[in-house]
Amino acid sequence: MSTASSEKEMLLLTRCCSFLKALPQRLAAKAFEIAACTKKLAQDDPRRVTHSAKVGVALSLVSLVYYYQPLYVNFGVSAMWAVVTVVVVFEFSVGATLGKGLNRGLATLLAGALGVGAHHLANLSGHIGEPILLGFFVFLQAATSTFVRFFPKIKARYDYGLLIFILTFSLISVSGFRDDEILELAHKRLSTIIIGASACVIISILICPVWAGEDLHNLIALNMEKLANFLQGFGGEYFKTSEDGEGTNDHDKSFLQEYKNVLNSKSTEESLANFASWEPCHGHFQFRHPWKQYLKIGALTRKCAYRIDTLSSYLNSDVQASPEIRSKIQEACTEISLECGKALKELSSAVRTMSQPSSADRHVSNSKAAAGNLESLLRSGLFEDTHDLLAVIPVATVASLLIDVVGCTQRISDAVNELASVANFETVKPTAVSPEQSLLEDVKPVAEIECPHVVVRVGGPTSGLPENYSRRPEPLTGNKQAEM
Amino acid sequence: MSTASSEKEMLLLTRCCSFLKALPQRLAAKAFEIAACTKKLAQDDPRRVTHSAKVGVALSLVSLVYYYQPLYVNFGVSAMWAVVTVVVVFEFSVGATLGKGLNRGLATLLAGALGVGAHHLANLSGHIGEPILLGFFVFLQAATSTFVRFFPKIKARYDYGLLIFILTFSLISVSGFRDDEILELAHKRLSTIIIGASACVIISILICPVWAGEDLHNLIALNMEKLANFLQGFGGEYFKTSEDGEGTNDHDKSFLQEYKNVLNSKSTEESLANFASWEPCHGHFQFRHPWKQYLKIGALTRKCAYRIDTLSSYLNSDVQASPEIRSKIQEACTEISLECGKALKELSSAVRTMSQPSSADRHVSNSKAAAGNLESLLRSGLFEDTHDLLAVIPVATVASLLIDVVGCTQRISDAVNELASVANFETVKPTAVSPEQSLLEDVKPVAEIECPHVVVRVGGPTSGLPENYSRRPEPLTGNKQAEM
Repeated sequence: MSTASSEKEMLLLTRCCSFLKALPQRLAAKAFEIAACTKKLAQDDPRRVTHSAKVGVALSLVSLVYYYQPLYVNFGVSAMWAVVTVVVVFEFSVGATLGKGLNRGLATLLAGALGVGAHHLANLSGHIGEPILLGFFVFLQAATSTFVRFFPKIKARYDYGLLIFILTFSLISVSGFRDDEILELAHKRLSTIIIGASACVIISILICPVWAGEDLHNLIALNMEKLANFLQGFGGEYFKTSEDGEGTNDHDKSFLQEYKNVLNSKSTEESLANFASWEPCHGHFQFRHPWKQYLKIGALTRKCAYRIDTLSSYLNSDVQASPEIRSKIQEACTEISLECGKALKELSSAVRTMSQPSSADRHVSNSKAAAGNLESLLRSGLFEDTHDLLAVIPVATVASLLIDVVGCTQRISDAVNELASVANFETVKPTAVSPEQSLLEDVKPVAEIECPHVVVRVGGPTSGLPENYSRRPEPLTGNKQAEM
Repeated sequence: MSTASSEKEMLLLTRCCSFLKALPQRLAAKAFEIAACTKKLAQDDPRRVTHSAKVGVALSLVSLVYYYQPLYVNFGVSAMWAVVTVVVVFEFSVGATLGKGLNRGLATLLAGALGVGAHHLANLSGHIGEPILLGFFVFLQAATSTFVRFFPKIKARYDYGLLIFILTFSLISVSGFRDDEILELAHKRLSTIIIGASACVIISILICPVWAGEDLHNLIALNMEKLANFLQGFGGEYFKTSEDGEGTNDHDKSFLQEYKNVLNSKSTEESLANFASWEPCHGHFQFRHPWKQYLKIGALTRKCAYRIDTLSSYLNSDVQASPEIRSKIQEACTEISLECGKALKELSSAVRTMSQPSSADRHVSNSKAAAGNLESLLRSGLFEDTHDLLAVIPVATVASLLIDVVGCTQRISDAVNELASVANFETVKPTAVSPEQSLLEDVKPVAEIECPHVVVRVGGPTSGLPENYSRRPEPLTGNKQAEM
């Protein structure tokens, strides 16, 4: 027994020792993990570091105002509202900061005035009536304002303003001071809030500004690009033979997963558009830039991403059509997928560079032509010798989904064209080559022979544009982006 | 000329008159519109009205505390922090209120302690060093805390706490008071915040509580039901002949649109799950109810909704297969769609009533069997006489998507079963009929003959359940829901 217990003790001791020995290592590992995470956060978006420093600067400045006696004598305890305002109002983007600052300032002004009125009214009603009337006023406005916050449109833009309205009204109206002191309180609160909010807005605009509008603009372009990457890679991935497969296993397939971020981008896009609507003109964006049109493009992009999600399930499906069956429509499908991808990439780069998306139209037409090809291929009794429809179904579904994606691309292209005309995107200078010539040069011979209607303009998407705008084969990313 | 100008004047006058005449009518119309909107908001969720009243009550109570002299003498201007806390902390659900209240309280405690320390340290460094050191401290903690708010996990749960941490630290550390007054300030701020937060939490729990957990629970069940409604209606809608079509045009087709809400439910679900994790045990939910499992079910439901979105585009597509072609697979497809719908409805009702989803397994098996039927039908050379594959494609795609939906349903069923076993959902009492008997009674004759494996249990989803649990054909909504 004693041997057993001493053995147990030994075991416990050994475990403790090994735990203590491992502790520094574990702590170091944890610290390393946090450091790595911090580094990644900072590298993913260096503006995060700038933003943190900006908040620090704004707060230090306003805090010292609060600390120094002369200013403190002027504002008294109310000076702390300046500090509170900076902490609460300073947001990542200029739009969010401006929106919150304006909401806070205007709500304080309005609620202060009403609060002084309510206080005065309650004062008139005598010693007993006063608290009852005050309580009733506070209840009424709090309940009403809280309910108003449920209206979706108001919630989107003025939620914070209503919060501050309730706050200020309650604070001012129930303050147990005399009338002139109340006025002073309201005045002090308003001016300190204005000081704090101005500090936020000025620092947020002057030091490395982060514009929500620009973020939305880039996000929409990036989302289209992600779909484009998937579509450009899909053909090769789906139709690769098993021998190809092993060779390319190592190479990066992240482009097949990227589109998943697009599926759930709605809330981000909506809040960015909301913030953007508060922003003044900046860079290439006017004050009333059509941000809503971006949301429309975003919705269509998501719609397309749903199709792509369905499509991607056929990449890894257990039930695969045999290579012989797949090879029959390989060319047409790859062509559709590639052209849709190119069109989306051109649209993305047109949005990014704020130029007319004229070069995308060609790819949309090409993809339509390829879809036409595929349809006639399917109509031609290609699979007559295959009696097993089940074997054809995966391929047929992929074909059908790709034809669906062509429709989605067309709608996205229409929406981008609408944006380009509403936001006056720049028209690209015509090249020396005539439009027809440059088109014919770029159309692949096979498409040219099989479907001459590739070169026919389909009208729809670019209606409203000048007749003689050119189509340049290359996306215009280079110097345009440098300008921005 | 004079006639013309007098005519113009007359026209202007008439317009003004008609505008003024129409003004009351327009105002009335606008008021009516707002009233209708208010009524709708209140009817859609009557808890909104209760919530507004609750905020009013809490604020009136705390305001009067602020107003009355004896309490005011105790706390001074700090009493307003109680009002501020109520306005800022009181959220719609108990979880959100608790989370904000705890965040605010703990952050104030921690930042207060650190702020007093920082103030003391700065005090030691002399008249010139003090503001510099203070400014440095404020900058350092504001910048660090702001950056920490970018960590996704921290943002989800402690974002508000960090905001209050920055706020309190700055307020306390830079207050230009003597050391003992600083301690008092910190103490007052903490106690008034505790008063405000407690008022919020107590009122939010005692008067008509709104539990975020319950909302999440119901939302997940509702989303499954919406998909079920679509699937149950899809067969009839897609395969209806044009004569049927005209007759049923008037009847409500909202069930075909409902699923669209599911597509973008991710952010709502995530914030509800976050709030729910703050909530104490309530109703049928324990403190550590597996809310994350709900998110998993939600994600799978969304995945299924993407397929359904693709499916729905074939309902209104221009390219439709001819009725003859469609009729060939009508029975199998309708069966799959119907059984998947039934399975989802049973799963939804099992989640809603917190009972084992045993009755859903039967429908999942049925849908699998129907998918098998469809596959063998397609394999049998059904469309041999149709050389035009293009005409078959829409139907083939619908078939393929439906087979895909069966897989989605299976995965949702697995996830619900996992939830049922983790959260200890109640096992339904066995009925007098033996399981095999009850099964055979419910299986439709056609399925019984063509695929006897319907009655074979597939194992997977319900592993971990007792072997002899029964399968009741009817969903168990009635008395269970009344209990909740």
